Amino acid sequence: MEINYVIDTFFAIFAMTLIIFMVPGFAMLEAGLVRTKNVTSVLTVNVMIYAVASMAFLLIGYEVAFGSWDHQDDMSKWAFFMFQMAFVGKVVNIMSGGVSERSRILPLAVFTVIVGAFIYPIIVNLTWGANFLSGTALDISSLSDLAGSTVIHSTGGWALLAAILIMGPRRGRYKDNIVRVIPASNIPLVTLGALLLWIGWFGFNGGSVGTISSKADTVALTIMNTNTAGLSGAITGWLLTYFRYKKFDITMILNGALGGLVAVTAGPDQYDIHTPILIGAIGGALVVLFVPIFDKFRMDDPVGALSVHLVNGIWGTLAVGIFVADVSILTQLKGILIVGMIVFPLSWITIYSINKIFVLRAGDEEQLEGIDATECGIESYPEFKRSI
Amino acid sequence: MEINYVIDTFFAIFAMTLIIFMVPGFAMLEAGLVRTKNVTSVLTVNVMIYAVASMAFLLIGYEVAFGSWDHQDDMSKWAFFMFQMAFVGKVVNIMSGGVSERSRILPLAVFTVIVGAFIYPIIVNLTWGANFLSGTALDISSLSDLAGSTVIHSTGGWALLAAILIMGPRRGRYKDNIVRVIPASNIPLVTLGALLLWIGWFGFNGGSVGTISSKADTVALTIMNTNTAGLSGAITGWLLTYFRYKKFDITMILNGALGGLVAVTAGPDQYDIHTPILIGAIGGALVVLFVPIFDKFRMDDPVGALSVHLVNGIWGTLAVGIFVADVSILTQLKGILIVGMIVFPLSWITIYSINKIFVLRAGDEEQLEGIDATECGIESYPEFKRSI
Amino acid sequence: MEINYVIDTFFAIFAMTLIIFMVPGFAMLEAGLVRTKNVTSVLTVNVMIYAVASMAFLLIGYEVAFGSWDHQDDMSKWAFFMFQMAFVGKVVNIMSGGVSERSRILPLAVFTVIVGAFIYPIIVNLTWGANFLSGTALDISSLSDLAGSTVIHSTGGWALLAAILIMGPRRGRYKDNIVRVIPASNIPLVTLGALLLWIGWFGFNGGSVGTISSKADTVALTIMNTNTAGLSGAITGWLLTYFRYKKFDITMILNGALGGLVAVTAGPDQYDIHTPILIGAIGGALVVLFVPIFDKFRMDDPVGALSVHLVNGIWGTLAVGIFVADVSILTQLKGILIVGMIVFPLSWITIYSINKIFVLRAGDEEQLEGIDATECGIESYPEFKRSI
Repeated sequence: MEINYVIDTFFAIFAMTLIIFMVPGFAMLEAGLVRTKNVTSVLTVNVMIYAVASMAFLLIGYEVAFGSWDHQDDMSKWAFFMFQMAFVGKVVNIMSGGVSERSRILPLAVFTVIVGAFIYPIIVNLTWGANFLSGTALDISSLSDLAGSTVIHSTGGWALLAAILIMGPRRGRYKDNIVRVIPASNIPLVTLGALLLWIGWFGFNGGSVGTISSKADTVALTIMNTNTAGLSGAITGWLLTYFRYKKFDITMILNGALGGLVAVTAGPDQYDIHTPILIGAIGGALVVLFVPIFDKFRMDDPVGALSVHLVNGIWGTLAVGIFVADVSILTQLKGILIVGMIVFPLSWITIYSINKIFVLRAGDEEQLEGIDATECGIESYPEFKRSI
Repeated sequence: MEINYVIDTFFAIFAMTLIIFMVPGFAMLEAGLVRTKNVTSVLTVNVMIYAVASMAFLLIGYEVAFGSWDHQDDMSKWAFFMFQMAFVGKVVNIMSGGVSERSRILPLAVFTVIVGAFIYPIIVNLTWGANFLSGTALDISSLSDLAGSTVIHSTGGWALLAAILIMGPRRGRYKDNIVRVIPASNIPLVTLGALLLWIGWFGFNGGSVGTISSKADTVALTIMNTNTAGLSGAITGWLLTYFRYKKFDITMILNGALGGLVAVTAGPDQYDIHTPILIGAIGGALVVLFVPIFDKFRMDDPVGALSVHLVNGIWGTLAVGIFVADVSILTQLKGILIVGMIVFPLSWITIYSINKIFVLRAGDEEQLEGIDATECGIESYPEFKRSI
Repeated sequence: MEINYVIDTFFAIFAMTLIIFMVPGFAMLEAGLVRTKNVTSVLTVNVMIYAVASMAFLLIGYEVAFGSWDHQDDMSKWAFFMFQMAFVGKVVNIMSGGVSERSRILPLAVFTVIVGAFIYPIIVNLTWGANFLSGTALDISSLSDLAGSTVIHSTGGWALLAAILIMGPRRGRYKDNIVRVIPASNIPLVTLGALLLWIGWFGFNGGSVGTISSKADTVALTIMNTNTAGLSGAITGWLLTYFRYKKFDITMILNGALGGLVAVTAGPDQYDIHTPILIGAIGGALVVLFVPIFDKFRMDDPVGALSVHLVNGIWGTLAVGIFVADVSILTQLKGILIVGMIVFPLSWITIYSINKIFVLRAGDEEQLEGIDATECGIESYPEFKRSI
């Protein structure tokens, strides 16, 4: 057997495995950020998303994205599928995390099927895949987006934006025109989850280079640059909040890191080793800046996903146009806009319909009681006495 | 150096590492499923099992299983050892998990030595190893069991069955002829643990193909099929409990996934990509079905290990005979029976003796107080006020 | 592209990724060992250390250690950097863990910059790197220290020793001449963290061999021996505490394992497969022995880092001289002493100055309230009622 085929198959399996660590990553991050009365439901949703989105992608989405199972011959097609499959759930995770504490589970599962089978695969088709708009004015296959600042993160972000607009904020969040701070219930889980996501990103971006056998340096540089932007986003998140509040806010440090990681994702293979410091710093700063802005507009997002994924997905895609000589910022802008113009309305219609038919939004009474009680009947920590 | 030797050594190290993630996987799963008064002891047992079973296998068991250290020449013999060693503790984990909340630690350590040095290695000898019954009527080396539906999961399951029969249920579990539900104390840990097990399974099954350098497609297919059965088991666990109770039961979703993973483990290299959907769905359904059945027979199993590992170990081994044309279902049945007829009595005698000599079962008073207090003197969460 | 270059780059990426799992590893271990009122600050410090130490190493330390970015040509220089970068934070982790519950965060960040940019890189320069003392009487480049029993663990340990001497114990720890036991607040996190460290060690030591393409057996043996010493340290920690107290102390089992892992780190590539059993056993015993000794001398170390990292770092470095025929114990001793004579005074001056200028030690009032409140303003588990 051709040795490059073996090594690239192995590397895709390795990278895929790191991405799958993002399943517990997202689950722990979100379980830590919400109140204990919603922890079980958040975990249930995370596991459900991985199972349902991946199955929908296996049965339908993969062929929507790539046209056939046999388009790939540089590595095992099964490894390539697994690598691509590992991405799908992330798009729904971004959306579901942002509407935590107020959404019902079955309607989310319906939405997950539609994203996994159609919405996300359509975007992949246009960018990394079969490209059914090839040659038309809407062709965005020349978009420079290595691992999905736009394809994954903005896509999830647009879906979340639609969901937030349709569903409105959590009960009482903006009562009496005050932004009520709802503290995270479990900081160790938040930290664990964010660090697992960080590690998963090495697989996400490194694996997206597509071959280590012929591009070993590019793969290593990609992983290094990915990490550097995370470091830089974390430090920026820390410094900005520290100088403003004289406190160390770990949720902002971690969200800053995630913002930096999203921002570098479009082009880590193309930057020198210092550029990601700047890209990540701006990414971290955007998170610190946009979290209060979204609150100002009463867009309630318990985990900061709009700032991390949508804002930085856009910033990261533009950054390739800014920092890489032979990438046109107009091409990048076109890609961002067309993806937004497809995903936002598609998601809006889908979520609006699901909310009408299946009632996605949990009522005020349900929210007061907690989604764990109404949807799962299982307390997250039944033996601990609560002070709240 | 021969390049295939290097790559297969590297791949075995990678796969072994994933399996070692099952150590925290089992530990977190079980720590989350039991009551807080037994969490420290469950964690202590999990770490002890890894240390003691692996050491027993290193000193004695490996040679019992494979005859010598030098039987291997396609990869580094040290990598092959580490890969095989990573399996051993799992067999004891299956047993210890199912007798949680009522077992004392030192007697479990004695049992661990015997499983790691003899019981498990004997089964490996007969199936994947030196085969000391070669040519006899009891020869089961033609059993088709890639990564241990029978060799690992049924073996652990038979040992657990013996332990449950000898030790009886937890204090008060079936009092007044009612099955008392004892809720899991920490759902995030349950979720984290199950997801780490899932990831570990990629190494378990993928690594069991034995070589990626000459079978890259088979390895990738194996990992894909493994994952698919997990997805399918999770979805089935979800749907069955949802249609029955109108609630989402995350422990059943996760146990459904684990059931699917056990079920596919005998033949993921031999199925097409759709068969694991069916195998996993049946696996998940068997878990939902058998958990109440075992309770009906007063077989108390706090983590559902009999349903996940024994029932699905049997089902998964039969499934290869059903779905793969050139595998005889009679060969599979013979393998299942002979392994059961060796492991069950051996375990029964061992556990019965250990219980007589060292008192494996914690008394009612000890169970009431909690094993953490009586065996460890360390509370799991000493600062949290308990409501129970 | 040269196939060995590809494989060694891939292996360095794999090993680096395992080491990065030590970031959540240390974070969870320490978050579990301290009281809930200090958990958020410990987590913040852990994330800060990874971000700041790595960035300082990227911008300054790497060139201090290795002289240039282009000294490496057997694998991608970016992979080599990432592998080396993954080590840096560990040195500070050792120090910060040992002064938990009484240190303020900003001064720790200043110390982290100095360690990441200078102190640790100077030690690397002398041992694994450019060696600016080459040919002088202080040349210790012939020290046999594969993965840093001295270079990492003793270095962190000497820094911690200086910090403890300067900062003194936690408020009330030795009040009325009694050693007050402060129980760990979250045993599942302690276990998870220690097991993640264990797994990370496979990458730490295995990757330090430097090439799998030409030394596949050595890499596999190194990982096997690393694991064996961990097993042995855990079992020794267990038996010694059990025979003394008739209880199973999981923190001693896990610290015993970590002690064994530190002890084997200097020479796992050079031992036969049985020697690490002895080395790890002594390592575990040293932890059990030295934890009360340090307390006797009023050296307050909430996580046992002095015993695990400093004592075993020294023991492990000597062990290569004892057990490997062609390694001189005098060379080992010289290396240990020179590293200590550089790191201890440098750290002492640095920490003393930082404590004067930025006030590293949190005051008694702050300690009473908890560092989370005074430094972070974020409770770790705000909804759980506390009994303490």
